[in-house]
Amino acid sequence: MSLTLQLAEHIAASRPGAGALAAARLALTDYLACAIAGSRGSDFQRFKAAFLPGAGKGQTLVIGSAARVDPTTAALLNAYSGHALDYDDVHASMRGHPGTVLFPALLAARRGESAARVLEAFVVGLEVAGRLGLSLGPSHYERGFHATSTVGSGAAAAAVAWLRGLPPQDIAKALSLGATQGAGLRGQFGTEVKPFHAAMAARAGLEAVVMVEAGLSGSESLLDGPTGFIALMGFDSAAPEKLLPGWGAPWQIEAPGLIFKEFACCTATHCAAQAMLHLIAQHDPAADEVAAVTVTFPPGGDAALITGPAPETGVEGRFSVEYVLARALLDRRLSVAAFDETPVSAAALALAARVRRRWDQTAPRQSNDPKTRFAEVALTLTDGRCLKRRETAVRGLSDPSEKFLDATGQNHTLLAQIRSMQSVADFDRLLSLLASAEL
Amino acid sequence: MSLTLQLAEHIAASRPGAGALAAARLALTDYLACAIAGSRGSDFQRFKAAFLPGAGKGQTLVIGSAARVDPTTAALLNAYSGHALDYDDVHASMRGHPGTVLFPALLAARRGESAARVLEAFVVGLEVAGRLGLSLGPSHYERGFHATSTVGSGAAAAAVAWLRGLPPQDIAKALSLGATQGAGLRGQFGTEVKPFHAAMAARAGLEAVVMVEAGLSGSESLLDGPTGFIALMGFDSAAPEKLLPGWGAPWQIEAPGLIFKEFACCTATHCAAQAMLHLIAQHDPAADEVAAVTVTFPPGGDAALITGPAPETGVEGRFSVEYVLARALLDRRLSVAAFDETPVSAAALALAARVRRRWDQTAPRQSNDPKTRFAEVALTLTDGRCLKRRETAVRGLSDPSEKFLDATGQNHTLLAQIRSMQSVADFDRLLSLLASAEL
Repeated sequence: MSLTLQLAEHIAASRPGAGALAAARLALTDYLACAIAGSRGSDFQRFKAAFLPGAGKGQTLVIGSAARVDPTTAALLNAYSGHALDYDDVHASMRGHPGTVLFPALLAARRGESAARVLEAFVVGLEVAGRLGLSLGPSHYERGFHATSTVGSGAAAAAVAWLRGLPPQDIAKALSLGATQGAGLRGQFGTEVKPFHAAMAARAGLEAVVMVEAGLSGSESLLDGPTGFIALMGFDSAAPEKLLPGWGAPWQIEAPGLIFKEFACCTATHCAAQAMLHLIAQHDPAADEVAAVTVTFPPGGDAALITGPAPETGVEGRFSVEYVLARALLDRRLSVAAFDETPVSAAALALAARVRRRWDQTAPRQSNDPKTRFAEVALTLTDGRCLKRRETAVRGLSDPSEKFLDATGQNHTLLAQIRSMQSVADFDRLLSLLASAEL
Repeated sequence: MSLTLQLAEHIAASRPGAGALAAARLALTDYLACAIAGSRGSDFQRFKAAFLPGAGKGQTLVIGSAARVDPTTAALLNAYSGHALDYDDVHASMRGHPGTVLFPALLAARRGESAARVLEAFVVGLEVAGRLGLSLGPSHYERGFHATSTVGSGAAAAAVAWLRGLPPQDIAKALSLGATQGAGLRGQFGTEVKPFHAAMAARAGLEAVVMVEAGLSGSESLLDGPTGFIALMGFDSAAPEKLLPGWGAPWQIEAPGLIFKEFACCTATHCAAQAMLHLIAQHDPAADEVAAVTVTFPPGGDAALITGPAPETGVEGRFSVEYVLARALLDRRLSVAAFDETPVSAAALALAARVRRRWDQTAPRQSNDPKTRFAEVALTLTDGRCLKRRETAVRGLSDPSEKFLDATGQNHTLLAQIRSMQSVADFDRLLSLLASAEL
């Protein structure tokens, strides 16, 4: 049996338990916080202006908008808004952002399934995303692919196929039609096209299942063999043998688990940001006392950080560790506003120019294994003192409820609904709250 | 200046001449022949059933259908039908099918431009497709990417951007938004998902320009550098230095030029098919006199032929050189019907099982240079005789007018319109003929 069909059988047989479901509930909280906040930006308004005129008739909700449209356009828009701030969840095995791909696809695909079943479908989709990421290995991302979309397309197809209860052979077709649409280059990081990649993947996953249901098949072994998805997209680190063993035991959502971001900038800056904020809290160095900053990564640990020390705007600054450390020093915190479309100040640029990156060549190369991740920040002060801090894990938020309440202007009703919902009626009520709320 | 911006400047300055325009007119003839014939198949009907329900309102023509829809859905459908039979044009530098990507994108994007300008935009888009193909080199295709879609996305964006008269910086953004959507795996060859790849690319090109016009930018250097499109997707054969020199002198549509297929099967089988038909015409061997067939390719020359000697249907048989040679021997010709959804006969399978492939290891590896292509067919007859023929070029049709008349049931009015049209009114008349004709 082909590897693709074996994966499809694992997907079809998946029955996530209570722990996974609780984690999925937090993930939905985090996704909605990001999408609601993201729907207010001018980049989302421009994206909406591109896609609404061609939208078909439909009743699918567009978060933060009065528009009700066909499911695929809704999937595009709700994925864009979820990733617009780059503040949404991250998964190490996938090396990307699953929530803003999977939830929009599931919201658009839902035909009356219960709240619990939608959350379970998310767990299944995330399992596929994580397993595909492990199978591709680190080269996929390092060479230039944006895993949120390349991996996300097949994972979203799997999540939607599971939600619909398709049999294994049809799930294999959906995986095939999803994976063959997997595109997106990291060269778009720091631009307003990065969230479009999430949108591409959400749409691809939904359309994959729509095509299967219309009777299209495609190869049922697209992941397999020397020219299949894993070998082709994994380069020299492809490891198809990592796809299936240990499936759901524990679920990828439980271990390594999702990271809910504290800061609205690239995860690859977070250990360094945590280290800098720790040094500020402990030693209170003033920005003008800092003569030099050195930030040390494992080899490959700064692959995502394609913006150098001179970003033009906060959006570009999301991918500049130099800017992140400079803003932390200047502001003594990292607010969402530090990463908006405002031009970067001269003070931040001057400070960012004093930051140097290096790799610790004695450390293992950063991979899809979160244990390989670290950052060390060393400050040299003008009086000659040296302050140093090493962080070995992205801390993240254990519960994104505060983030959600901030994003919605303290909508406790909506939060309580997400926290408790189980049934079909519960999910319908979520949608009506999302549609009626002052978002 | 980035390579992407340099390419954008070349595109903006392009002014195709009369020779290129005449070739583009033949290409449109060939595309419409294939789309009209392709729109009758059950695979197209299934594809239409997947995408029409979500279509937006619009007046864009769907070839072979009464539907009038939003431009992006029309681009999807008109690209699918054009590639459904795998009978459409091929370009060696691109290593793919440009017409069925570029024309649907241009038809959907047109806002009243003249017939001549649409044909010129095709020449420009094909130049980009060919140049990108040469820059990626042979590894892109051989490792498993389907260049029709991966290369086609950026090329379609360029064609539409040129049609709209965008300035170079906006063309660079369109290239960026097109290329970042470039996906599609060769593993789908022999399935009804292959034409979806052409559809993905046509839609991607159109949407790229729609997004630029709505104010999205993206990276203006996405083709560049070690993680850019060319380096990432070209593997070890990436050659960005081949992108620009000699631009339009001659145009890629003039040399190496387009191949208009004689047979509705993969181009990689055509030299072998020509050789077999030549041997049949010269020596008239009966099928049951043939004990063994050996077909020799340059190394990599059968990369596209992913179906082995036992296809289940004629559609799969498009990618089986063994089946193609067997059908030629049985039928003494290769009709379009040999490659439809009918199950393969026992006689064809028995004969296909007697065909062996080999590579001539002394020949240069097959690349994007058409001079590297050849096939040699050797028949061993039951009486011990050996018949041998070598073909070094895909012959193709010099003029696809007969193919067009066959596809349309002898619609000479429509053909004459394509052959002569120049003005805005001429193109409008083409559309009304396409809409009204019994297709």
